[in-house]
Amino acid sequence: MKLATYRDGSRDGQLVVVSRDLSTAHYATGIADRLQQVLDDWGFLSPQLQDLYEALNGGKARHAFPFDPQMCMAPLPRAYQWADGSAYLNHVELVRAAGGAEVPERFYTEPLMYQGGSDDLLGPCDDIRVADEAFGIDFEGELALVIGKPGRHIAAADAMQHVRLLMLANDVSLRQLIAAEVETRLGLVQGKPSTAFSPVAVTPDELGEAWQDGRVHLTLQVSWNGRKVGLCEAGPDMRFHFGQLIAHVARTRNVRAGSIVGSGTVSNHGVDQGGRRDWPKGYSCIAEKRAIETILDGAPRTDYMRFGDTVRIEAFGADGQSVFGAIEQRVAKA
Amino acid sequence: MKLATYRDGSRDGQLVVVSRDLSTAHYATGIADRLQQVLDDWGFLSPQLQDLYEALNGGKARHAFPFDPQMCMAPLPRAYQWADGSAYLNHVELVRAAGGAEVPERFYTEPLMYQGGSDDLLGPCDDIRVADEAFGIDFEGELALVIGKPGRHIAAADAMQHVRLLMLANDVSLRQLIAAEVETRLGLVQGKPSTAFSPVAVTPDELGEAWQDGRVHLTLQVSWNGRKVGLCEAGPDMRFHFGQLIAHVARTRNVRAGSIVGSGTVSNHGVDQGGRRDWPKGYSCIAEKRAIETILDGAPRTDYMRFGDTVRIEAFGADGQSVFGAIEQRVAKA
Repeated sequence: MKLATYRDGSRDGQLVVVSRDLSTAHYATGIADRLQQVLDDWGFLSPQLQDLYEALNGGKARHAFPFDPQMCMAPLPRAYQWADGSAYLNHVELVRAAGGAEVPERFYTEPLMYQGGSDDLLGPCDDIRVADEAFGIDFEGELALVIGKPGRHIAAADAMQHVRLLMLANDVSLRQLIAAEVETRLGLVQGKPSTAFSPVAVTPDELGEAWQDGRVHLTLQVSWNGRKVGLCEAGPDMRFHFGQLIAHVARTRNVRAGSIVGSGTVSNHGVDQGGRRDWPKGYSCIAEKRAIETILDGAPRTDYMRFGDTVRIEAFGADGQSVFGAIEQRVAKA
Repeated sequence: MKLATYRDGSRDGQLVVVSRDLSTAHYATGIADRLQQVLDDWGFLSPQLQDLYEALNGGKARHAFPFDPQMCMAPLPRAYQWADGSAYLNHVELVRAAGGAEVPERFYTEPLMYQGGSDDLLGPCDDIRVADEAFGIDFEGELALVIGKPGRHIAAADAMQHVRLLMLANDVSLRQLIAAEVETRLGLVQGKPSTAFSPVAVTPDELGEAWQDGRVHLTLQVSWNGRKVGLCEAGPDMRFHFGQLIAHVARTRNVRAGSIVGSGTVSNHGVDQGGRRDWPKGYSCIAEKRAIETILDGAPRTDYMRFGDTVRIEAFGADGQSVFGAIEQRVAKA
């Protein structure tokens, strides 16, 4: 099942069911108004939404209308939690190596994670509004999931049953502000402005065999100003699967329904080609490209995003269909 | 006006208005069910709650009942944001000095802040449930506020008009886990389990002259196992006022109604007494006591909390009345 939140002037928007091929949609009115409601009462409400979804796919939903991603807010426009992992160790290794820092042993056994702000999440086509280009504006293409069944001390192996929905995320980063914030050792506030999410959130069954071992085995396509810069595989190099990320958040806390957990920037290991290290899959964030340039040539050549720049993030299923719809954002001066 | 959230088996509880002296309460039914609703529509709903509050104080509310803090959830049992500052530099100086680290210059001009989890906030009398005493269980007595009017790029001087409610907080900390987490440079997840809040949240006018310059000029009383360990003044040594803390969160993001911002552990500067440095006001967290012991005697003598330990945090107005009611929690094995 695929769900989206349509803009209606309210803070939480209006829940819609979207057809598998993303061509049509139908208001969930009469079942639920908001996605958080559904997450709070999944057992009762989701079968009703599933029925509507099937009618919609069969062309039998009475008041179906063409689906327009431009109308979408984030599936959860404000959420009670956004905890973002950094599960692709290649990303961490590259960024650390470029900065001349070692990767601590612990990073290979314990997931990295930061707590993000979740009161103002962006829709897939919302502008990335930043006051100053000098902040070092970057995108981060990621997978994210929404937890339904709450709990504390969830074992990584049991965590999959807590996953209700999957989405794409653009975890926008302000690199120059992050550089200063990490020195506080208390984490990221200003360096992580609002994160954007894909038009639709989908139940794991929509991924078929691509959802396996707690990982999404799809290619994440990232384009910057219309040019494809990343075709990274989201499955194989995800060192910590989503179950481990959920278990990490839930180790000392009771995690509640509607919490969003992110994978971190999707990133693949490099390969040795003709005596030189190469990263043929490209990149899902500019910081990584700059790290590669620094490692290979001593200095970064690629600048961060400018006002007017665009980024597009999307993933396609085995059938060639866009699974989540595309995140497509423009950087604008705040 | 004083507001609380009564436990009713639901995730968000039931909004009640509480009398100034905390003796009686009245359901806000008919006006609003949940506090977040009120924050989303403050201009319309708060005058109605204020009328009920005045009737309650005058003994004229029809269905008033005795107020019981044990029935309270956090005023916002789940919130869209919990961003906690560390605005009392003495706390930072002590903890750094004990660890042999300098305080960077930047810490005197830019507030320190971490993003906390906000999906599972604790009521004033809820147990602090921790799996292992070896995690280094600590309390942190703090002031916190709830933002009502949302915004981005809020100037510190304008931020006061965004403050809707004030509360006390116990920002529970697991010191041994924090020690490992700060090394990730991405902030705190496992080291900060659920934060607890006072029985009532109060509008700033309830503080009278004690609410000045964006600071709460009251004494924060902290007792550990029934023994008073802290009588710190919350006003004078708060290096960054709440307006500056709000401006810090809102620098690169749009901050939404219902966001909670914390002061950090209330802490007063030491004084020189008889040739020896002393901190006569005591402490609002054990880490600080241990830092003082380390500075004076080379090693900490005070252990962190044990299962069964209790902590009580409260503040009294000029009239001797408890302003927010007391946070009174026990540590229990999870």
